[in-house]
Amino acid sequence: MRSTAELIAEKRNGGILSEEEIRFLINGYASGEIPDYQMAALAMAIYFQGLTPDELSPWADAMLHSGRVIDLSHLPGRKVDKHSTGGVGDKISLPLAPLVAACGVKVPMISGRGLGHTGGTLDKLESIPGFRTDLSVTQYIDQVAALGVALIGQTDEVCPADKRLYALRDVTATVESIPLISSSIMSKKLAEGIDALVLDVKVGSGAFMKTIEEARVLAQTMVSIGERMGKKTVALLTNMKQPLGRMIGNALEVRESIEILRDEGPADVRALTLALGRAMLELGDTDPNRIETALADGSALALFAQIIEAQGGDPRVCDDLERLPSAAERVPFVASRDGYVSAMDTRRIGLGACALGAGRATTDDLIDPGVGLEMNCRVGDLVTAGQPLVWIHHNGRGLDAARAHLTAGITLGDSAVEAGDLIFERIG
Amino acid sequence: MRSTAELIAEKRNGGILSEEEIRFLINGYASGEIPDYQMAALAMAIYFQGLTPDELSPWADAMLHSGRVIDLSHLPGRKVDKHSTGGVGDKISLPLAPLVAACGVKVPMISGRGLGHTGGTLDKLESIPGFRTDLSVTQYIDQVAALGVALIGQTDEVCPADKRLYALRDVTATVESIPLISSSIMSKKLAEGIDALVLDVKVGSGAFMKTIEEARVLAQTMVSIGERMGKKTVALLTNMKQPLGRMIGNALEVRESIEILRDEGPADVRALTLALGRAMLELGDTDPNRIETALADGSALALFAQIIEAQGGDPRVCDDLERLPSAAERVPFVASRDGYVSAMDTRRIGLGACALGAGRATTDDLIDPGVGLEMNCRVGDLVTAGQPLVWIHHNGRGLDAARAHLTAGITLGDSAVEAGDLIFERIG
Repeated sequence: MRSTAELIAEKRNGGILSEEEIRFLINGYASGEIPDYQMAALAMAIYFQGLTPDELSPWADAMLHSGRVIDLSHLPGRKVDKHSTGGVGDKISLPLAPLVAACGVKVPMISGRGLGHTGGTLDKLESIPGFRTDLSVTQYIDQVAALGVALIGQTDEVCPADKRLYALRDVTATVESIPLISSSIMSKKLAEGIDALVLDVKVGSGAFMKTIEEARVLAQTMVSIGERMGKKTVALLTNMKQPLGRMIGNALEVRESIEILRDEGPADVRALTLALGRAMLELGDTDPNRIETALADGSALALFAQIIEAQGGDPRVCDDLERLPSAAERVPFVASRDGYVSAMDTRRIGLGACALGAGRATTDDLIDPGVGLEMNCRVGDLVTAGQPLVWIHHNGRGLDAARAHLTAGITLGDSAVEAGDLIFERIG
Repeated sequence: MRSTAELIAEKRNGGILSEEEIRFLINGYASGEIPDYQMAALAMAIYFQGLTPDELSPWADAMLHSGRVIDLSHLPGRKVDKHSTGGVGDKISLPLAPLVAACGVKVPMISGRGLGHTGGTLDKLESIPGFRTDLSVTQYIDQVAALGVALIGQTDEVCPADKRLYALRDVTATVESIPLISSSIMSKKLAEGIDALVLDVKVGSGAFMKTIEEARVLAQTMVSIGERMGKKTVALLTNMKQPLGRMIGNALEVRESIEILRDEGPADVRALTLALGRAMLELGDTDPNRIETALADGSALALFAQIIEAQGGDPRVCDDLERLPSAAERVPFVASRDGYVSAMDTRRIGLGACALGAGRATTDDLIDPGVGLEMNCRVGDLVTAGQPLVWIHHNGRGLDAARAHLTAGITLGDSAVEAGDLIFERIG
């Protein structure tokens, strides 16, 4: 076996590492025998030279097996999860998980927190008074058995090598690498005990992938890892050229999610929830048409209330949205001129919400659950000067910064434009 | 000021860092505020993206000022040093330093140890019984004042950032980067207190630079750093397609160096010593023709004896080569067939000497001062089967490995070839 430095040099030179060498590197990093500085150099070499499918598969597998791999095989039925690469206003997991579980497919979902301009499912759930996402693995398994669905945060037991590598990549400018992103996502998801996975790969100004071509490569890479590990995997490439739905901010997004489960809410959130849900039901060997029924008959909303109750939250929010935290003030951000909303820089809009306290600039920042942005326009709308484009829900923090981000993030022009499709294509 | 991770990303993306940012990075690394893992990622990004002259100059300058910069300005006369990028059989520093100093130019020389297939000046000097290279900076300055020349090893006071970065590069596959090599060499050399520098950039199978084109880039980069820091710098690109001289191994190379100072010895060592010496005298504002005189009148040899005595060694070796350590046995490596010596893999020959104990595979290895290889052929020679091509001086260690390296390292063919010029070109 070659030394770690020789393996880094091989990758640096564009060579291909063997499965044995890949496992040596990941296992050595997980055990602490390979130090951060060697992994940092390797990650940068991978940033430039990539990993082939034959390298990526053992890489993800070794990451997966660096910790506990949860076994749900004793539970009857298919277990299917959804993962989004992250967008602004992307609250889909909240209505989707109870909706799919209400149709009989189990949804074991381990999610992350928000950082930067994108929100996190855990932060949104925790804006429901009392809601806990820090269940133990045993409680998680029990709840999946009892309700068919659980929504929890990552634990130290699962994929510790990924946790360490993710923190390292964050400070060494090696986040933006498709093989490293793919293997990080897939190893965590495959550790949940799922049989299949639906991926929502966002494309646009608020997403990591700015073009369909890039997003397609990421989606294909993740689908390939999943398939090689024997898990059916499907990816949808979806539009992130403007925020999803009307609401951005934690309790605001819970509110919109409950609206969706009431068979109301914005058309785009509803459409994407149904599309992802249908894909999950397909992979779960269940008739996709059941999904409309679960929405119409209230069973998905009832299950969401059960999840909230099981995880320590106040289920009455489902009936009474006023029980959710809200901001003290709501002020408009108005159009500076007549014209068409010609483009949105979704990242800037996300940073605007973050400035109010809806997200974190660093992992130590505290979240203000009630604040956020309520979008009152969509790309292509004709607006007049003075018309509110956004309602800013704030508690006195970051208002000027939010306005500056919105000014930069919403472009008004003279000609009508199309927002484009919500779903670009399906892979896998 | 952007964060370290943002600066790494900028370089990774092919951007250019400002002087202030470069100094922030090097000073932060020197002080320990920037950890090894961030520097490792940055070094790998530099491996791929390079550094512009405007980045490299502050990089080398910040490295230089990470520790003590020795001041010799109170000593009269010019101070000029020579640095070689490392070859096999390259003992030039040993005859060159006293030769140039005997002509009146001061030679303050801080050298390194050998690692891998190349030898180190310090190891060669220490094969002289009693010779010490661990002088303090004060002793070093005093000796340059008294004799005009001192030959010592690196101290912790000088370029500590380079010492740390060099060790990091060694284990992160980031050694082979022209800007990092150049700045490492130049910062160490400029910390010696010199006014000017002559560089010997080796080209060929035993050198880091395999082609003249690569060597030219390295030479130009180093000359540019030197000139920007106000130090006259000249580089010679020289031939390393076969070992330099006849002797490879520590005491064997001292022996050959003394022969040179006796106005004897192999023509190539003599020619390169004179060429480098003339360049040093030019940069030292001294008539280059004095060099033949210093060789012919014995003053250079006498000064070498004085250096040895001043540094604790036995100066009688200059008169009596038998006082140098030698190996217990001397056996031939013979030609397997009739033919021409058509090529040498100098690296393999260096590894052959290393296997006997003349060099180190790792920094912990002990050197056997007496062992080595005595080359009995040169590229282009017509040889007959059974003729000794090399005399192996050994103490029972590594003989089989050395023979295997020599078999691979010396190619016999059917047609005559030219060894090529000793000196390819001069830069600066």
